Amino acid sequence: MSITRENSRIMQRDLEVIWHPCTQMKDHETLPLVPISSGKGVYLYDFEGNSYIDAVSSWWVNLFGHSNTQINDKIKAQLDTLEHVLLAGFTHTPAIDLAHKLVDITPKNLSKVFYVDNGSSAVEASLKMSYHYHLNRGKTKPIFLSLSNSYHGETIGALSVGDVKLYKETYEPLLIANMQVPVPKDQSISSADEALEALEEVLISKSSEISAFIIEPLIQGAGGMHMYHPQYLVGARELTIKYGVHLIADEIMTGFGRTGKMFACDYADISPDFMTLSKGLTGGYLPLSVVMTTDDVYNAFYCDYNEHKAFLHSHSYTGNPLACSAGLATLEIFEQNDILGENEKKSKYIKDSLEKFSKLSNIKEIRQQGMITAIELKGYKSTQRTGLKIYEYALSQGVLLRPLGDVIYFMPPYIITYEQIDEMIEVAYRGIEMVQDDIITP
Amino acid sequence: MSITRENSRIMQRDLEVIWHPCTQMKDHETLPLVPISSGKGVYLYDFEGNSYIDAVSSWWVNLFGHSNTQINDKIKAQLDTLEHVLLAGFTHTPAIDLAHKLVDITPKNLSKVFYVDNGSSAVEASLKMSYHYHLNRGKTKPIFLSLSNSYHGETIGALSVGDVKLYKETYEPLLIANMQVPVPKDQSISSADEALEALEEVLISKSSEISAFIIEPLIQGAGGMHMYHPQYLVGARELTIKYGVHLIADEIMTGFGRTGKMFACDYADISPDFMTLSKGLTGGYLPLSVVMTTDDVYNAFYCDYNEHKAFLHSHSYTGNPLACSAGLATLEIFEQNDILGENEKKSKYIKDSLEKFSKLSNIKEIRQQGMITAIELKGYKSTQRTGLKIYEYALSQGVLLRPLGDVIYFMPPYIITYEQIDEMIEVAYRGIEMVQDDIITP
Repeated sequence: MSITRENSRIMQRDLEVIWHPCTQMKDHETLPLVPISSGKGVYLYDFEGNSYIDAVSSWWVNLFGHSNTQINDKIKAQLDTLEHVLLAGFTHTPAIDLAHKLVDITPKNLSKVFYVDNGSSAVEASLKMSYHYHLNRGKTKPIFLSLSNSYHGETIGALSVGDVKLYKETYEPLLIANMQVPVPKDQSISSADEALEALEEVLISKSSEISAFIIEPLIQGAGGMHMYHPQYLVGARELTIKYGVHLIADEIMTGFGRTGKMFACDYADISPDFMTLSKGLTGGYLPLSVVMTTDDVYNAFYCDYNEHKAFLHSHSYTGNPLACSAGLATLEIFEQNDILGENEKKSKYIKDSLEKFSKLSNIKEIRQQGMITAIELKGYKSTQRTGLKIYEYALSQGVLLRPLGDVIYFMPPYIITYEQIDEMIEVAYRGIEMVQDDIITP
Repeated sequence: MSITRENSRIMQRDLEVIWHPCTQMKDHETLPLVPISSGKGVYLYDFEGNSYIDAVSSWWVNLFGHSNTQINDKIKAQLDTLEHVLLAGFTHTPAIDLAHKLVDITPKNLSKVFYVDNGSSAVEASLKMSYHYHLNRGKTKPIFLSLSNSYHGETIGALSVGDVKLYKETYEPLLIANMQVPVPKDQSISSADEALEALEEVLISKSSEISAFIIEPLIQGAGGMHMYHPQYLVGARELTIKYGVHLIADEIMTGFGRTGKMFACDYADISPDFMTLSKGLTGGYLPLSVVMTTDDVYNAFYCDYNEHKAFLHSHSYTGNPLACSAGLATLEIFEQNDILGENEKKSKYIKDSLEKFSKLSNIKEIRQQGMITAIELKGYKSTQRTGLKIYEYALSQGVLLRPLGDVIYFMPPYIITYEQIDEMIEVAYRGIEMVQDDIITP
């Protein structure tokens, strides 16, 4: 990547004032920060005319490309009518229409939509709602159960149910009561069965104290794109029903076709008690999230005001009309095109194209679920930051491949073409090939 | 308010699927939910042509009216260039320009901007950052201190530092370690001094365990628009420096001119260690928030990556370009107009117009700070829901006055005209006059 004057000047203005998320800022003494002037389709453009294929969909949010005309038009029309109104006591058609569509496409028991505005807050709302449900029914169940290696967000409640040390360890003394059960160790049925046994053991002894079991169905994103078999979802649903514990499916990353089906839960044909959605919900445009839940949960809060059982959770921009419009345009694109069908072909094409990777000496595993493909490397210590070297190389070649440690992954916008897939994969190949020389452990 | 067919039809579609924030849904069996078709200036319009003066700025977010042309144009232009890109490793000019402007207008020591996307998450980021700062300096300080009657948001960490029972009590077993000191009981200097004594007592005994003291400067919003003297801010800043505890100024509600000055901290000429901003930051358009902090805090995290001291907090839509554009347009309006000067006149006009209220038998106190004016009623039990009756009456008269319990308040968009102020106040007067008959306690 050629960082000449214009990019560099803008980078300097940035570093004077911005503290970037999830970043050791000292890295930018050597790692150039890339200022983006515009985006179109899968491409991001910097201020010197370089382009980058956004192979991670800008942190897993973008579905149909940058500056998508159909989504833009819908937001512009909404700007001219109503940019925002509070959602308490008031409502608006973008929120209503989007909620109806979500109820239609999500698993069958999910009938109510509670709007929130980012992923972490949706997770927190689902945890609070589950706890409060049991309380309204006369039970105090202060523990939440989650999977080992899970990630559900950054706010204290969401962080507490996560298990990725990198994010969580520092804040241990601040976290709330939580327990983890082992995630299935791979995509096999046998590991799903094994993990279900461990789940049932915990439920047998602790279910009276556990409000909910929260999971990332099929794929743990920040946990290195770890994948497991749908059979685990089937079993987890059965067991949580059996032991009176809610099941929260956190589909913030997996929702809206990422895993191949519209929702990861669809692979197991299960209906959770709560589903959290965000990221792709607005096609990658704006922060918006929802907690979907059931009539049973809704009814546990429905009573005379003075019984004080209402769910008094809110965020100022809950159900923002502009974000809901982006969501409506996104779902319209799904309705008007065979997105899942096309993705299936692209997904297979990506998998087939990766065959030559398996001959490289630093490949531990290649795994795929729908439009998420992960290449896990081996042979390095984490302090070598091998993934970062590949990231830098790929940037210089016009591909944005931000890894998770030493896991390189592809999670491109669905509109990526076969030619762009070829380019993305070729650059990843050369980057991974390049670091073969750095292998230090067997 | 005439609810004939169209509003009613839309309301029914809403109630089938939406669970509204901060709402006992059963209330809507009798209380009509108002569907809004469009907004312009201070007005919201329903589907039958009724208009409502948005006297609470849609939960305290709107500054320059609904569907504001200047803000709309800026967002539309941004839509055509770049709707979003991740802010880790990448950047864009809307985020950079907005950050520079924020550094320019906020108190002098605030030099770095950490983008988040809603208010609760900004509070959580500031708490984590403060705790982590002390940890990076070798100290474990797991307690946060806040004011009695405070409100800082709904996620578990933010809820923990709050003190409004209505929101918090239900979730007590889930909350993290926190302590409260008494808020000054009124706007007098003597009550500020008294509260400072209590603060110092706690700091003397507990400062080694306390990371930060978080406050809503001058006005506690959800705590019934409770107001106190700037002298408390001066003293709190001195004491927190003296005892090595961070001061977090949560200006999510008070920022951007609400209190009369640009920030409430300006009344005391203090510079906190952290300032959280949201709501008015985008003029009421889109969710966006920031944590502003100092070089001292920034530098405590700045080191080689492998020392593992980085602040690894992120949200997908952190620093969203569309929301940053709305923020830039909002600050441009401040730059191009004497908003604070005009607000000062309007604020005085509102105060003068309220003189006749004090003769009503159910007025406990009228208080004002800049563009926030609160009328606290007396003589009712909370179960009577007197505020709600006034809300319903005001709606029928075309004014949106959503109260906090029995506190009626005005927090209108700054573009409200004197005629509209007259109308807003007249409707409130008649509503409050109307409920005089309901007084049951002396």
